[in-house]
Amino acid sequence: MSADHADEPRIMLAHGGGGVMMQELIGGLILRHLGNPTLNRLEDAAVLAPCRSRLAFTTDAFVVKPIFFRGGDIGRLAVCGAVNDLAAVGAEPLALSLSLVIEEGLAISVLDRVLQSVAATAAEARVEVVTGDTKVVERGAADGLFLITAAIGAVCDGVNLSPAEVRPGDAVIATGTLGDHGIAIISQRSGIEFESPVQSDVAPLSGLLAHLFAEDGSPHYHQGTKAPGTERSLSENSRRSPCLGALVVKLRAAVHCMRDPTRGGTAAVLNEIAAAAKVEIEIEESLLPIRPEVAGACDMLGFDPLYVPNEGRLIIFCAEDAAAPLVARLRSHPLGAGAVRIGSVMKAARAGPEHSRTGRVVLRTRVGGTRIVAAPYGEQLPRIC
Amino acid sequence: MSADHADEPRIMLAHGGGGVMMQELIGGLILRHLGNPTLNRLEDAAVLAPCRSRLAFTTDAFVVKPIFFRGGDIGRLAVCGAVNDLAAVGAEPLALSLSLVIEEGLAISVLDRVLQSVAATAAEARVEVVTGDTKVVERGAADGLFLITAAIGAVCDGVNLSPAEVRPGDAVIATGTLGDHGIAIISQRSGIEFESPVQSDVAPLSGLLAHLFAEDGSPHYHQGTKAPGTERSLSENSRRSPCLGALVVKLRAAVHCMRDPTRGGTAAVLNEIAAAAKVEIEIEESLLPIRPEVAGACDMLGFDPLYVPNEGRLIIFCAEDAAAPLVARLRSHPLGAGAVRIGSVMKAARAGPEHSRTGRVVLRTRVGGTRIVAAPYGEQLPRIC
Repeated sequence: MSADHADEPRIMLAHGGGGVMMQELIGGLILRHLGNPTLNRLEDAAVLAPCRSRLAFTTDAFVVKPIFFRGGDIGRLAVCGAVNDLAAVGAEPLALSLSLVIEEGLAISVLDRVLQSVAATAAEARVEVVTGDTKVVERGAADGLFLITAAIGAVCDGVNLSPAEVRPGDAVIATGTLGDHGIAIISQRSGIEFESPVQSDVAPLSGLLAHLFAEDGSPHYHQGTKAPGTERSLSENSRRSPCLGALVVKLRAAVHCMRDPTRGGTAAVLNEIAAAAKVEIEIEESLLPIRPEVAGACDMLGFDPLYVPNEGRLIIFCAEDAAAPLVARLRSHPLGAGAVRIGSVMKAARAGPEHSRTGRVVLRTRVGGTRIVAAPYGEQLPRIC
Repeated sequence: MSADHADEPRIMLAHGGGGVMMQELIGGLILRHLGNPTLNRLEDAAVLAPCRSRLAFTTDAFVVKPIFFRGGDIGRLAVCGAVNDLAAVGAEPLALSLSLVIEEGLAISVLDRVLQSVAATAAEARVEVVTGDTKVVERGAADGLFLITAAIGAVCDGVNLSPAEVRPGDAVIATGTLGDHGIAIISQRSGIEFESPVQSDVAPLSGLLAHLFAEDGSPHYHQGTKAPGTERSLSENSRRSPCLGALVVKLRAAVHCMRDPTRGGTAAVLNEIAAAAKVEIEIEESLLPIRPEVAGACDMLGFDPLYVPNEGRLIIFCAEDAAAPLVARLRSHPLGAGAVRIGSVMKAARAGPEHSRTGRVVLRTRVGGTRIVAAPYGEQLPRIC
C-alpha cells in the first residue's frame, strides 16, 4: 500500500480489541474526521429523529483494489455507493453507517486519508456518519481495508420508482458518460498509461436528486444532528409551498424508474429492467455518451463499455413527454451536465412456445443494424467497487 | 472450512460480478433463505413505511473465527449483534441489512448453513433482512466469510437510555452469566476440551426488551413487509391502552442505561459508563454470575471473565427502587433467567490535582478486599465476533 516508511505507525490487532487502544483509534482518528454530536456519543446505536416520509434502507460492501484510484478512493466510493442507492429509489440521505474491516499492518496514514475522503464526500452529500464499527483481522485475513456502508433515506413524496412502472413509450436517459469508473480502475490496475488518463466518475447523487425533485434544488431534509421533533422533509416543505414548480411536480410523476449502473454496467441495468417490466429496450449506439479515451481503453482491453461500471451516474426511465425537460433539468446540474437520451422502451415481441412477452435489450448500431445486448454473465472486472 | 468434498460447489469470483451468476446466487440461495416481499424486489434500496418513533441505527462487522462455534455461528452472531445494539438504546428492530464479503472458494454449503442461521435468528428476533450486498474477493484476500449487518429500530417512547442518565445510587444488573461467548470461541479455537463444553450465549435480545418495556411483553411494532401507513408502534399501542401496567411505566423511566458487553467484556462496559457518568461503580465478586466451567477455563487460559465477551447479555443501570422488580421481570423471560444484581453506582471520589471526580470501577472481592477493574487495553481475544 503506502508502505514507504517501514517505521510508520500501523494498525495492530489490539486496535480492534474493544479496549483503550480502540478508544484511542476511534477518538483520535475516526472522530477527528467524522465527528458530529450523534456519532460522538459512541452509543451502541445512534438515535435519530422520527421520519414522516417513507424510509429507504440500503447497504454496500466495498473491496475496491487499489484503494486509491484516479478520481476517487474507497472512502469516496463507500459514501457514494450508499447515497446513490438511495437516490435510485428517490430518497435523500438521512444518516450513514460505516464499518471498517482492517488488515493488521495497514499504515495509519492510509486509514487517515480514507477517513478524510469519507468525511469530505459525506459533507458533499449533506449526510453524516452517525454510527460505525471497527474490526481488525490478522495479516493475510483481509486485503488491506474493506469499507461497508449502510444508509437510511427519506423517500420523496409523490415519487414511486420501480421497474414495474416502466412502460412502452418511456424514454431512457443516461445522466452522463458511461464506463468511466471501471476503466479508471482497470487501467490503473493493469498499469496501462493513456495519454489522457480516465478519471472515475464516482460522485454522490443526492444533490442531483434534489435538483430534480425539490422545488429549489436543495435538500430540505437533513436530520443528522437535529433534536427529535424538529425535522422537516423535502416533501412536507413542498406540500406547504404554494409555488411548487410545475416542473418538479411533473418530474415526480413522470420519472418511472432509476438505477445506478455499477457492477455489470449499463447492460446489467437495462437487462434487469427489461426482464422485470417485460419490455424491449432499444438503445442507439450513436447516442451513447462514451468518452473517446474510455472507448479507446475498451478497444485495447477487450471490454464493451456498456458492461463497465459507473459510480456517479443514473439510468433514468421516464414518460416520453417529460424526456426533454428532464434532460434539460439534468444538464443544469454539474453531475448531470452530460445527460442524454440513449433510447426508448418498446413493447416486447411475443416469443417462445407460449407467445409470452420476454424482456430484452437491443442496440441499434451506427451502421443501421441491430444486436442483442445480453445480460452480463460472470465477472468482467473483479474488485471494481 | 467444511472442505470434505473436493468437488463440492464453491463460490467463484463471478458470483460477485453483477451478472447472471450473481443473480443465480441471490435468487437461488439468498432469497431461498431470506426472501420476503421487500427483499425480493431487489431494489437498490428497500422502501419501508414511515416511523413515528425515534429511529435507532447501528452497524457491526463480523469476522469471527471459526465461523461455526458451540452455541452459534457467524450468521446468528451478525443478526444478534445488530439487534442487541438496538436493544441497548431501547429500540425494537424494524429492518436488517446484510452485506456478505466472501472469499473465492468458499463452499456453497457453508454459505447455505450461515444464511439458514441468519434467517432463523432474524425470525426469532421478529425482523427481516430487507436489503443486502454480496462481494466476492479472490483467494487470500479475505478469510472465508465476513458478514456485516446494519439495523434500523424504533426507540420505545418514554425510554431515554444514556450514560449521562446513570447516577450514584443506581443498581447494576447483569441479565445472565458473563463470559460464555468468549470462552466458547477461544476454547474451541485452542482445541481445549472441557468436560462440559461452554456454549456461546449469543441470542437476540429484542424479545427481552419488549418484555421489559411493552405491556404484554411482545413487540407490537413489526413493520417489515407491511404497506406504508399501516404501521403501529409499541409506544403508540401502549399510550392508547388504559391498562398499561404500572411496572412497564416504572421500568421505562427507571432504566437509565444499557449496554451489551461484547468486545472488552463487562469490564469495558463498566469502565465506559463510569468514565462517561463520572461515577464509581462498585461490583461484588460474590455476586458475579459466572459459570463454573467458564471460571475454570479462564483460570486455565489466563483470562479474567470480566474481560470476556458475551453476545446475548445486557448490563443494566437502573434506579435503586426499581432494581428488585426489574430483576424479577428479567427472570420471568428465558433470556433473562439468570439475571442478578452485581453492584451499585457510587459517587466518585474527588482526586487528582484539580480534585475533580473521575470515574472508576472497583471490585469487592470475596475476602473483603477491593481492587480496581481497569479498562481493557489492547486485544485479549482477536476475532471473537
